[in-house]
Amino acid sequence: MAFAPVENCSIDAVREAAARIAAHARVTPVLQSASIDRIAGASLHFKAEHLQRAGAFKFRGACNAVFSLDAAAAARGVVTQSSGNHGAAIALACRLRGIPATVVVPRGAPQVKLAAIADFGARIVPCEVSQHDRDRVTAQVLSETGGELIHPFDDPRVIAGQGTATLELMHQVPGLDAIIAPVSGGGLLSGTLIAAKALNPGIAVFGAEPEGAADACASLRQGRRIVDMRPDTICDGLRAHLSERTFTILSRHCDGILLASDEEVRQAMRLVFERMKQVVEPSGAVALAALLRARARFAGRRVGIVLSGGNLDLTALFGTAE
Amino acid sequence: MAFAPVENCSIDAVREAAARIAAHARVTPVLQSASIDRIAGASLHFKAEHLQRAGAFKFRGACNAVFSLDAAAAARGVVTQSSGNHGAAIALACRLRGIPATVVVPRGAPQVKLAAIADFGARIVPCEVSQHDRDRVTAQVLSETGGELIHPFDDPRVIAGQGTATLELMHQVPGLDAIIAPVSGGGLLSGTLIAAKALNPGIAVFGAEPEGAADACASLRQGRRIVDMRPDTICDGLRAHLSERTFTILSRHCDGILLASDEEVRQAMRLVFERMKQVVEPSGAVALAALLRARARFAGRRVGIVLSGGNLDLTALFGTAE
Repeated sequence: MAFAPVENCSIDAVREAAARIAAHARVTPVLQSASIDRIAGASLHFKAEHLQRAGAFKFRGACNAVFSLDAAAAARGVVTQSSGNHGAAIALACRLRGIPATVVVPRGAPQVKLAAIADFGARIVPCEVSQHDRDRVTAQVLSETGGELIHPFDDPRVIAGQGTATLELMHQVPGLDAIIAPVSGGGLLSGTLIAAKALNPGIAVFGAEPEGAADACASLRQGRRIVDMRPDTICDGLRAHLSERTFTILSRHCDGILLASDEEVRQAMRLVFERMKQVVEPSGAVALAALLRARARFAGRRVGIVLSGGNLDLTALFGTAE
Repeated sequence: MAFAPVENCSIDAVREAAARIAAHARVTPVLQSASIDRIAGASLHFKAEHLQRAGAFKFRGACNAVFSLDAAAAARGVVTQSSGNHGAAIALACRLRGIPATVVVPRGAPQVKLAAIADFGARIVPCEVSQHDRDRVTAQVLSETGGELIHPFDDPRVIAGQGTATLELMHQVPGLDAIIAPVSGGGLLSGTLIAAKALNPGIAVFGAEPEGAADACASLRQGRRIVDMRPDTICDGLRAHLSERTFTILSRHCDGILLASDEEVRQAMRLVFERMKQVVEPSGAVALAALLRARARFAGRRVGIVLSGGNLDLTALFGTAE
């Protein structure tokens, strides 16, 4: 099926993003593990986005959006709301461009992610957990600063940036049969679909979602956007709902959403720690967990797996931070 | 100072080892971290031996020794005593050569390391913790099997194999001012010294040792081998004493032993997990910990740091194994 583009969400936009972020983002390596391949019965190629700057793929989209701003807009600074990796990514991208960043953060966000936002020099403005309060506080900051809102996923610049990971992956590993990427708000999966299907219309692209936050799966099955689910999962990066934009892209092109339980996510994380010696967060391991549950479907195939992030609270291992 | 070789411990032996293990061992990558460099005030180049097969540099020496055996000796199999990474390395090397391996393991060895030895198909024979009982049981197994003993460090074939990591590192990163490697029995540090000083007589090479098992430090200071210390450290891979052979090599060529407390080791591990997203064991992080304590000495220098292994008990993070 030919790719029917959503406005500004095209392979051209992804290629432009790749050029724009090239001086700032890392070309992350692709890792392999013979022992995990044996368990999976497939040839897995892990795109190591936990090794991206700020520890997650989010830096790609944030960097593309921040460096897309014209000088006047950039001078007023950037505002976003995020409990996690997008906030840190915006903070770092703004520091690199030398412009102010404000991140609206709901109470209860993981300490390790808050610390990263602050370390990168962004101003943190707390809000309540409810979407209503997030939006209220964000609007207030926007009107005070005149800054530019960069949404974590519902933004063509962000989607194009996230697609650059797949652009790299498909050049690094020719001949993939399928790619699996985590889905939350759908920015990464949208970018993955745009890049993958443009480069190889025959490739299968799946989202991976925790059972406790399976709104994308339900949305695609029912053909309408489900936004009233209450997430209950250890995958703290995967608790958002699709936007109209990402729902449209997924509806047209995604080959399916694969699920994994929190326990399966934990086991997949453990495999990545033990066999690959890599630190991934729960949200970063969900694609491997989903593949292992559905392994019969991928037997003997060459599959790209996006390890999306590595920002994990390691208090259990090391005690509280100094 | 010219290198005065201990028998069979020469750069030629290291080069032969590199050729012998090339088909089996990995050329591990060298990793960098801008944020750890900022903390250290130096340019650090991490030789990623936690990404070596079986999760530690030990595979290099074990592989060289196992593939050095003539056909008749190989057929009788290999025996070793090890509570950890050397046992797993011997087990894997023997599996690759298709010969039997027996590992004598003291009670109380880390579960994750025992599991690796068993997974690679070696026979495990338990013994008591005392050196006397280890030696008694090992002798018994040797007489039963007629097998070849491969000592974890007091063996020129093992020392030459360990030296191959530095041979690679110095080709991967030209112009290093110094290299720091962990020291326990001294096999890795001996191999590191042989390779580094042969390739660049002006390079400084240091051992790194936990304060709770600082027998190598005391031995070099006092000019005699100290073998009666009781190790008390979280670095479970660094509890052995030097042999006459490794003591001689270190005495002649080592530029010093740097120390780190267990708390400093824990903080260094945490940095590697958080900033580099790499899983290292305590013994694997001691060289970074020692550098950070002595950072004034290395300010502005290019330093190679051996991340020696990544076989860590992750029960605190994931619960007990399934």
